[in-house]
Amino acid sequence: MIDRLCIIGVGLIGGSLALALRRAGMVNEIVGSSRRSEHLHRAVELGVIDRFDLDAARAADGADVIVLGVPLGAMRTVCGQIKGALTEQTVLTDVGSSKASVVDAVHSALGMLPAGFVPAHPIAGTEKSGVEAAFAELFDGRRVVLTPLQSSSAQAIRSVHDMWSATGAIVEQTGVGHHDQVLAATSHLPHMLAFALVDSLARMGDHDEIFRFAAGGFRDFTRIASSDPVMWRDICVANRDALLDMMARFQEDFTVISDAIERGDGEALLKIFNRAKQARDRLKIG
Amino acid sequence: MIDRLCIIGVGLIGGSLALALRRAGMVNEIVGSSRRSEHLHRAVELGVIDRFDLDAARAADGADVIVLGVPLGAMRTVCGQIKGALTEQTVLTDVGSSKASVVDAVHSALGMLPAGFVPAHPIAGTEKSGVEAAFAELFDGRRVVLTPLQSSSAQAIRSVHDMWSATGAIVEQTGVGHHDQVLAATSHLPHMLAFALVDSLARMGDHDEIFRFAAGGFRDFTRIASSDPVMWRDICVANRDALLDMMARFQEDFTVISDAIERGDGEALLKIFNRAKQARDRLKIG
Repeated sequence: MIDRLCIIGVGLIGGSLALALRRAGMVNEIVGSSRRSEHLHRAVELGVIDRFDLDAARAADGADVIVLGVPLGAMRTVCGQIKGALTEQTVLTDVGSSKASVVDAVHSALGMLPAGFVPAHPIAGTEKSGVEAAFAELFDGRRVVLTPLQSSSAQAIRSVHDMWSATGAIVEQTGVGHHDQVLAATSHLPHMLAFALVDSLARMGDHDEIFRFAAGGFRDFTRIASSDPVMWRDICVANRDALLDMMARFQEDFTVISDAIERGDGEALLKIFNRAKQARDRLKIG
Repeated sequence: MIDRLCIIGVGLIGGSLALALRRAGMVNEIVGSSRRSEHLHRAVELGVIDRFDLDAARAADGADVIVLGVPLGAMRTVCGQIKGALTEQTVLTDVGSSKASVVDAVHSALGMLPAGFVPAHPIAGTEKSGVEAAFAELFDGRRVVLTPLQSSSAQAIRSVHDMWSATGAIVEQTGVGHHDQVLAATSHLPHMLAFALVDSLARMGDHDEIFRFAAGGFRDFTRIASSDPVMWRDICVANRDALLDMMARFQEDFTVISDAIERGDGEALLKIFNRAKQARDRLKIG
């Protein structure tokens, strides 16, 4: 049970966390903060938060658990703002899509890594953003990955674990570096491919004609290109090394396919497509 | 009204065409043919076709309309087999995903392009294949592109147009070359990206772990990697030039993104992501 929860950045993820914790009866009071008061007014109207303060430090004051739900690029600034509100008992966590950069931001803003700090990443979301898109069921059956640090106390890890479990999520733990690599592969790289494809086609001469002939598969494939551009810019900057590594690896594999097409090597293509189909078909079970 | 329709290759597309035409009351008798009798037995059981003949020429004999529903790589062989069954009145069409290669196959098998031949491509399908996956509604509201040739008679064009209209599809016309370019962009390239991505991840060391952390976006994005490998090998070979052109264009644009990430150019990334999001959001309407 959390007596007072402070969520800084009440968007799709922060808002859905609030709703899920309310649903579970896991929280007494929820205080929100963000840069824009209209979003916070709306969040109160929607019953997502109880009250808000535009001043992050005041919003965080007296909170048992503080969740940083801001874009990766804002983590350091926000951490600096709430520094004075942190006590030895405060649990501090975040929902960022890359973890090393958040650890750096917290360390650099606070001058140390507090025992109450446990980085976390709910692997959930839609291409939508904002508190209007939030819903209590977002995390049902989804994975939330905690990446506890050497500095994290067992008690803080347990608190963050219990909070996410209460949302209906499956909570797992892994290392910061491993998380960032895996997410680069399964989320950040696919988003780069979708953005690049749609942009590539949009800049072709007869793009209206082109998109007109796009079938259902194209819509599914490019849905993630509707994601929030600012959030994705931040992820690119934050998880630069792991993402560049995956992009380079992808380009090599893509070139193997284009070389096979060039030389008309149907056997090589069939081998790749079969391997991919088998891997994708296995995914359906999980 | 078609008195006798012959479908060679009774799979997802051929089978769904049969079911849609039955639903519309547009056809009297449907005869199927393919390489495997068990598929044809199943197609009769499912009410997709009335009867079948493993010999394509016998199946095609006396048909008013012949639809080639075989993979692109089999078009030429099948055309050679049915040559004797074609009369001046026979309408011949196909459902291939690339058109220039089908025109070549027909020309090469028959030694000429008959006036009854009208290439067509229903832009519909799922990642599933086979007659078991066929359903009458597959073409409802989907686009079917006819690419009539200089040699095509007005009457044959009208027959193929009316047949596809009866399935609930929106029928359009364009040139062979233009079709092949547009499909390379909106269908063939995305499939290459999905196959390459899934294969790339599947060959990484801890691929079970990697796929375990894949979220909903990844599932949508990679769904098309479950498509039939043989069909896609054939498409790569058949639409080689247009596809290679699009793949090269994509790789350039993808490199622009990876260069921007490398130099930490958030502004350039934001511009690209915004442009892509806008293009993708417009797509939702259509």
